[in-house]
Amino acid sequence: MTSRIVEVRRDVLKKNDLLARELRRRFDAAGVFVVSLVSSPGSGKTTLLEHTLRALAPRARVAALVGDLATERDADRLRRAGVPVRQITTGTVCHLDAEMVGTALAGWDLASLDFVFIENVGNLVCPSSYDLGEHLRVVLLSVTEGEDKPLKYPTIFNTADIAVITKNDLATAADFNRAEALRNIDELRPGLEVLEVSARTGAGMSSWVQRLELTRATQVTSAATVDHG
Amino acid sequence: MTSRIVEVRRDVLKKNDLLARELRRRFDAAGVFVVSLVSSPGSGKTTLLEHTLRALAPRARVAALVGDLATERDADRLRRAGVPVRQITTGTVCHLDAEMVGTALAGWDLASLDFVFIENVGNLVCPSSYDLGEHLRVVLLSVTEGEDKPLKYPTIFNTADIAVITKNDLATAADFNRAEALRNIDELRPGLEVLEVSARTGAGMSSWVQRLELTRATQVTSAATVDHG
Repeated sequence: MTSRIVEVRRDVLKKNDLLARELRRRFDAAGVFVVSLVSSPGSGKTTLLEHTLRALAPRARVAALVGDLATERDADRLRRAGVPVRQITTGTVCHLDAEMVGTALAGWDLASLDFVFIENVGNLVCPSSYDLGEHLRVVLLSVTEGEDKPLKYPTIFNTADIAVITKNDLATAADFNRAEALRNIDELRPGLEVLEVSARTGAGMSSWVQRLELTRATQVTSAATVDHG
Repeated sequence: MTSRIVEVRRDVLKKNDLLARELRRRFDAAGVFVVSLVSSPGSGKTTLLEHTLRALAPRARVAALVGDLATERDADRLRRAGVPVRQITTGTVCHLDAEMVGTALAGWDLASLDFVFIENVGNLVCPSSYDLGEHLRVVLLSVTEGEDKPLKYPTIFNTADIAVITKNDLATAADFNRAEALRNIDELRPGLEVLEVSARTGAGMSSWVQRLELTRATQVTSAATVDHG
């Protein structure tokens, strides 16, 4: 029984990897930079994204996909930033996969976009195994969640390119031990870049947005070089 | 492909349900009341449980199982309450199942216990499908997570017997909209009992502990009646 499940799961992951690779090729060819956000439910993905879309919208062409088991609430919130947003509802599935992303992109002219953001279902476990073709995977950790999350949910931190500590305005109220959180991240992933923000007060937001723009510039140049290389 | 996955998943769930039923029979025969806690990572399951174990330990025989992908950290924290605690590490699996619970209980004399608490892996999605043989399933929602979680993660709220709103001491700092949270819970699950606590300040903790003791008394009496009926 167990070995049959493992075998089926391997097939699913292999199929996802192939689809993700295809998506990444499409993104590179279109010159669009794709960023995914993963975290627990309630770590502030939607709030961070809402502020990020507003900050980028005046100077870049941005769009977003947002995953949830149910409701269009997050898409409704993000649309207030005045950019194209599509909701993916997964039903009982605890993560997005490359096929869902591909389907949700249908009809969008990727070459007319600079950034696509993908907000995953709130989950610190399942999304780690599914490549979505993104260029940058960002794991969020809010100051109210406890400093030990990187050690207790290692897989998701191991697959991320950057960690963002959110809700910094609540750090004092929540007795957040910043040094311990940074130590735990570094113990698991030595050298992983960590940004600290509060979407509510705006602290750290300009560094975060600059980081995205800089990484996009590097990525798009390097993808173009590969294309013509 | 998809239909084969569904079929395998159905077999897994059916096997789990049979094992969970068997566990529940053992719990009832031993007169032990079993409570499981589910929530996002960082909603305060371990802190609530630590305070609950301390409150119950002087007047009842209590023990706990605690699930995590990795580390013995939660078990170490809970053992400070001076009660038997076992850690279940699930690796990459996003939930506990009845088999893991059965294995972790090995060697414990259930008849010598009044309460067993089971803290699930932090996840608002996967644990909802797995019956662990518990008598009471408690879903936690912290005030920092956002009032919309019941609507966005309906399955877990649909399988719970009680909702507990945690970290009430942070409600003001987090701009928690209590009325909206209660409205969202009630919209999804009309009449679901909701308790509100702060393990840090102790607010609401005595009601919560009394609720557990009362429910245990009712459950154990009714199970005994069924046994001899």
